[in-house]
Amino acid sequence: MDKITKRSEDYSQWYLDVIAAADLAENSSVRGCMVIKPNGYALWENIQKILDAKFKATGVKNAYFPLFIPKTFLEKEAKHVEGFAKECAVVTHHRLAANNKGGLEPASPLENPLIVRPTSETIIYDAYAKWVESYRDLPLLINQWCNIVRWEMRTRLFLRTTEFLWQEGHTAHAGKKEAEERTKQMIDLYKSFMEEYLALPIISGRKTEAEKFPGADYTTCVEAMMQDGKALQTGTSHMLGQNFARAFKIKFLNEKGKEEYVHQTSWGLSTRLIGALIMVHSDDKGLVLPPKIAPLQLVIIPIWKNDAEKKKVLAKANSIAEKLREISIEVEVDERDERPGVKFFGWEKQGVPIRLEIGPKDIVNKSVVLARRDNGEKTIVKEQKLAAEVKKTLTAIQKNLFNRALDFQQKNTRSIDSWTDFKNSLKEKPGFILAHWCGDSKCEAAIQKETKATIRCIPFEQKKENGKCVFCGKKSTNRVIFAKAY
Amino acid sequence: MDKITKRSEDYSQWYLDVIAAADLAENSSVRGCMVIKPNGYALWENIQKILDAKFKATGVKNAYFPLFIPKTFLEKEAKHVEGFAKECAVVTHHRLAANNKGGLEPASPLENPLIVRPTSETIIYDAYAKWVESYRDLPLLINQWCNIVRWEMRTRLFLRTTEFLWQEGHTAHAGKKEAEERTKQMIDLYKSFMEEYLALPIISGRKTEAEKFPGADYTTCVEAMMQDGKALQTGTSHMLGQNFARAFKIKFLNEKGKEEYVHQTSWGLSTRLIGALIMVHSDDKGLVLPPKIAPLQLVIIPIWKNDAEKKKVLAKANSIAEKLREISIEVEVDERDERPGVKFFGWEKQGVPIRLEIGPKDIVNKSVVLARRDNGEKTIVKEQKLAAEVKKTLTAIQKNLFNRALDFQQKNTRSIDSWTDFKNSLKEKPGFILAHWCGDSKCEAAIQKETKATIRCIPFEQKKENGKCVFCGKKSTNRVIFAKAY
Repeated sequence: MDKITKRSEDYSQWYLDVIAAADLAENSSVRGCMVIKPNGYALWENIQKILDAKFKATGVKNAYFPLFIPKTFLEKEAKHVEGFAKECAVVTHHRLAANNKGGLEPASPLENPLIVRPTSETIIYDAYAKWVESYRDLPLLINQWCNIVRWEMRTRLFLRTTEFLWQEGHTAHAGKKEAEERTKQMIDLYKSFMEEYLALPIISGRKTEAEKFPGADYTTCVEAMMQDGKALQTGTSHMLGQNFARAFKIKFLNEKGKEEYVHQTSWGLSTRLIGALIMVHSDDKGLVLPPKIAPLQLVIIPIWKNDAEKKKVLAKANSIAEKLREISIEVEVDERDERPGVKFFGWEKQGVPIRLEIGPKDIVNKSVVLARRDNGEKTIVKEQKLAAEVKKTLTAIQKNLFNRALDFQQKNTRSIDSWTDFKNSLKEKPGFILAHWCGDSKCEAAIQKETKATIRCIPFEQKKENGKCVFCGKKSTNRVIFAKAY
Repeated sequence: MDKITKRSEDYSQWYLDVIAAADLAENSSVRGCMVIKPNGYALWENIQKILDAKFKATGVKNAYFPLFIPKTFLEKEAKHVEGFAKECAVVTHHRLAANNKGGLEPASPLENPLIVRPTSETIIYDAYAKWVESYRDLPLLINQWCNIVRWEMRTRLFLRTTEFLWQEGHTAHAGKKEAEERTKQMIDLYKSFMEEYLALPIISGRKTEAEKFPGADYTTCVEAMMQDGKALQTGTSHMLGQNFARAFKIKFLNEKGKEEYVHQTSWGLSTRLIGALIMVHSDDKGLVLPPKIAPLQLVIIPIWKNDAEKKKVLAKANSIAEKLREISIEVEVDERDERPGVKFFGWEKQGVPIRLEIGPKDIVNKSVVLARRDNGEKTIVKEQKLAAEVKKTLTAIQKNLFNRALDFQQKNTRSIDSWTDFKNSLKEKPGFILAHWCGDSKCEAAIQKETKATIRCIPFEQKKENGKCVFCGKKSTNRVIFAKAY
């Protein structure tokens, strides 16, 4: 039961096995919709808590907008509807009524069908048009945490599901510069959040025209490398310019009394991020979680042989738990009547960063055993130094996971300058390729067609460097990142 | 602008005016769906934060289940589907495609239509059937925070909207007794939360057969009296018995290895509660908020006549704000260039419990003025005693709001024993009527038909008392609460 396939054997199956073994999520009976189980949802709650505070610190407030979007709203921004029309769940009736076969069928058709939100720009900006009158109403900085529906044909737990959870921020500004700054501020916030809390080394940059959000002037993104060398986009921040403002007539009187359209941004991050978290850190034994995001940071396994020992060891285990909780460490004592080995194995699969073992001998020696989930290291720690040692170990694990992932990312990122090398390189070994590109969507499409690699982003951080497009040989001034992606 | 109708003139309009003036919510362009604006959503966030911690303290964990429910799932429990079929949003297509009029229309019909969840018993219990195998898997204690859709024909902000936000808890137990205890535990939790934090005097009890949740064995509820004497149900907790367990085959092996159906409960509370909060405490000047749920507890209005004064007063105001924040009070300094009167009026409408005024003279006197939103009382407080005084005042406001509402509820609750009195009483004066009822649904329906009053609940707390049904004269052993309701 709960056998985990090795990464080297079948990476895709390994991913699903890790999710099952850690009891994070499962497919529901509704096509493409997942059930996020308590262990998985606890990760999302931690992500929400941290991010929400960070958003609010930049002046953002939360609100809630309707689940349904009138079809006519989507149609207002031509590129936007083009981007989403193919994957829309459409509500057409508002009642079920008995049919003559003894069952129920949709009844009371709607005059105007409603779309279940695939993203909320249009329904939110319909409201913004009413809210914004003067420059004094700006900037408008609003976020919502909600569910989203996109009818995906091929789904995969967390990574691509018909319904998912996310946050979407929507801001409106008086000036273009402020909107561009907010776009950058939020992608930077995502990057630092993911690096600091999720231990994910992130490359941030700008999407190409072909890859940008439908309706945006441009899109910025954060990308991470999975252990199979593929890229996963973990968040985006869009500079919407005045496209939606024109479509929805979001106008304000500036300080001189002149009417202008607002400049807008939108930015989002979803439960997909949990997929990245799993794929970057976990190993053949199961889930590995960075301490800063782990719902449970330390599990205590009391070890006993008889009832007398049990009583004594449990008392000690619980008193240790209390002390660690006092310094804000999330602890659980596993009191179940199971063999220690079964417990070790179970918590390992769930990715708890530290296991603390304590038995009768340890009590005599006034010490405990700490075992790290990330590298398997075991150390004997004197009880008196335990609190400090646990804190230090959690910090070390967090750092180690980040460094390990960064090392992997760097080792699997290579600069390539010839088209033959490019093609061979991707066949031989997955990873990120830094290559020159002329900026033409045609080259981008041709490269994708031949290699399945897409341009993940034009990284913000890179040195200017003259070169030639790896495909067509035309002039280029900087490298972009190519990779196969989830 | 933002004029508030008097309660005595038009209570319904007053309610909508208070919401508009406090900027809590508005109707969206989608029929029946509201936009919860930042001021309103902040209330929901506070409700969520407090309740979520209370749920977790009883062992409940959060999870997330699909938005969509297959039609066939709803049909599995006959009474359940009967209760919800008339108000279901039905998804029938998963794409929009160009039609020959240059517009878009629903395309790619679904083989099996999906219902947007009107409540999640069926989709959750489909999962529970897979999760539960042995008595060791029980109790299963899960909650989800999500959006819900019920196609209401007459909607009203917060009170009745096509889409609303709520939490729904779903538990499964090995024994009937445990399930009954959980049903009671959660309704008690709702009551104490609403009384302590929202200052709402609550009457809890059991619903009649006619008013129970479709599919439950019985329903318990919490009810509050609004200022117009009408009742509002603010939460429910259902003993589901084994009805859904049988329909969804949720079986477990008990300790003796015998297969049994689980016993279940479900319990929920929604954004409707915000409607109650508004209607119980607010006045003709606008929103009134209990300090324990108010997103902003104290607002500082600095008063100045010239730039020199402004600088000095603002510095003082911000230093006071800092000190109050240190003792965990939510404070804002209103630094806008507006007349103090305009600011007073604005914050009053938003229901901030305490206004603190400070001007140049106050600085000299080392004092400030505190004004209470609930009763308008103003006091001069020495700066040195400020922190203690603010805490004391917040406690006093919280208490006063509860007592005021309780007093109103008690004054508008009367015991009535004759049918003529019953009819006249409701015509003369709204409120709650405590009357004997024989237990027959026919009497209940007849009373409702004639008076529009329904049985709100059979209260838990009451003395046994022999009497005669107020309608038919048959024997009765206890009184129930009749009222017109939202």
